[in-house]
Amino acid sequence: MRQAGRSLPEFRALRERHSFFDVVRSPELTAEVTLQPVRRLGVDAAILFSDIVTPLHAIGVDVEMRPGVGPVFAEPFRSEDDLDRLRPLDPESDLAPVLEAVRILVTELDVPLIGFAGAPFTMAAYLVEGGPSRDYARTKALMIGAPDLFRRLLDRLADLSLASLRAQVEAGVAAVQLFDSWAGALHPRHYADHVLPTSARVLGGLADLDVPRIHFGVTTGELLGLMAEAGADVVGVDWRTPLDRGWARIGDRAVQGNLDPSVLGAPWPAVAAEADRVLEAAGGRPGHVFNLGHGVLPDTDPDTLARLVDHVHERTEGRA
Amino acid sequence: MRQAGRSLPEFRALRERHSFFDVVRSPELTAEVTLQPVRRLGVDAAILFSDIVTPLHAIGVDVEMRPGVGPVFAEPFRSEDDLDRLRPLDPESDLAPVLEAVRILVTELDVPLIGFAGAPFTMAAYLVEGGPSRDYARTKALMIGAPDLFRRLLDRLADLSLASLRAQVEAGVAAVQLFDSWAGALHPRHYADHVLPTSARVLGGLADLDVPRIHFGVTTGELLGLMAEAGADVVGVDWRTPLDRGWARIGDRAVQGNLDPSVLGAPWPAVAAEADRVLEAAGGRPGHVFNLGHGVLPDTDPDTLARLVDHVHERTEGRA
Repeated sequence: MRQAGRSLPEFRALRERHSFFDVVRSPELTAEVTLQPVRRLGVDAAILFSDIVTPLHAIGVDVEMRPGVGPVFAEPFRSEDDLDRLRPLDPESDLAPVLEAVRILVTELDVPLIGFAGAPFTMAAYLVEGGPSRDYARTKALMIGAPDLFRRLLDRLADLSLASLRAQVEAGVAAVQLFDSWAGALHPRHYADHVLPTSARVLGGLADLDVPRIHFGVTTGELLGLMAEAGADVVGVDWRTPLDRGWARIGDRAVQGNLDPSVLGAPWPAVAAEADRVLEAAGGRPGHVFNLGHGVLPDTDPDTLARLVDHVHERTEGRA
Repeated sequence: MRQAGRSLPEFRALRERHSFFDVVRSPELTAEVTLQPVRRLGVDAAILFSDIVTPLHAIGVDVEMRPGVGPVFAEPFRSEDDLDRLRPLDPESDLAPVLEAVRILVTELDVPLIGFAGAPFTMAAYLVEGGPSRDYARTKALMIGAPDLFRRLLDRLADLSLASLRAQVEAGVAAVQLFDSWAGALHPRHYADHVLPTSARVLGGLADLDVPRIHFGVTTGELLGLMAEAGADVVGVDWRTPLDRGWARIGDRAVQGNLDPSVLGAPWPAVAAEADRVLEAAGGRPGHVFNLGHGVLPDTDPDTLARLVDHVHERTEGRA
């Protein structure tokens, strides 16, 4: 449950005193906010607190985390010259606090820790748009208008993603998640031609490390087969696609999802019924990781989240 | 091409002098902005300038069109008591300027005029959230937490939609489009259980008028079959779903779409290639209405739009 923290009072209290990058630069704070949802909710895994733009920030790209907006870049990517601003990542120095946080967490946690990074397309979309976007119009215009430059951009970003994820695994994470948050804005042909090859290079570059590789984005219903093909062991499915339908597209791999996070504001019996329907759609098959279909909304009641975790544990007790 | 106007300098000039509701309340201004894209682009049909919230505004619901945001409601829908604020629509008086605009337009246009209305779910989402939303969390919580009240709300809104569309047809529009802009945020089961029945009542209530009924929303890949089932003659497909794949889900009906509006910022040869791929996916089958997969983005160059219309006309010359 990515971003479960946002709904927790203890997380909000901490964030009032510390900026986002304060947290990311402090191993102790990163460990603390990563542990918060595990302590309170009893989930089966922890996900490292970080952001898709962390490696970009770490190599000196000027990015600010603006409250209520997201990451905003001082100088969006516009041309070939901007490639030079994307120097290679040296994880042991650039991501030292992140890796130290991983080392702390693996000693403190009783559950596996999941590392993560942004996929090349989603990082590119942030860089080209200069921040969050509704349409990704500049990104797509670059993609189809200057495909070679776009590929070179994605290749640089793939190097960042891969270096970051490999270092996280070496520091102790038990699984990795590659977030292609915005890939769902693409036509499958665009995804296959312009995005899949570099995502496949990231996922393939982790194969020797023998950790499960989770791949996820929202509104990716039409892309699920391609995202599996990119080399994921587990593919996340958002709530728009029925889990069984999505799983059929993913094929012989594991699936993660897919309760609509927006339903958690309903009275508990309705929430429980919705969770049961996700479990029914999975049909008790091994290889289903119960999860929300996207991040927890900030207004969600933590008690509902804790109750949901208990409910799913009860319903799946005795299963592998 | 809905909202083609937003990208035209003549539209922006007019909107600097007149608010959105000034335009909607003036038959002459509505006619003028409806004609603008037809004159400049040479499209095969005009779409009436209006908004999904027009009938709500017309029955006295307090809604403001906030620039850069969209419609914002002074008092969001919260409980059963709020149903009373949704009185029935009397189109001849409440929508008099809209209908007068239709009558002017049908005498001035050489191409068919398409009328439109919001589908009940999308109007409900606006009312419950109080404006545009990313997650529709309140709407979904009401939908699954209080399904009977939600159905009564949708029923009231269906009455508005249907009354508005019937009156537009009687005033002379040649086709109608029912926009369920936000339905794509729903799981197909939620759509089938809570939304489809009232949308079907709107579309079914137009059957005797013998005009094509177009039904559209974004991120509706998983819903296309259900949206066709709701009684549409033509189903719009956004750009995320390949046109041929979407058409297979829609079945024996016509299809509208689906060029990604975001690609229009690329150099012309790339845009032309993208348009050709949409035409290829349609395979020259009768029943394909070439269109964008969503509204025109405001930054789009009108010359690119005009060139696209010419290009599609050339490529499809001689076809029915």
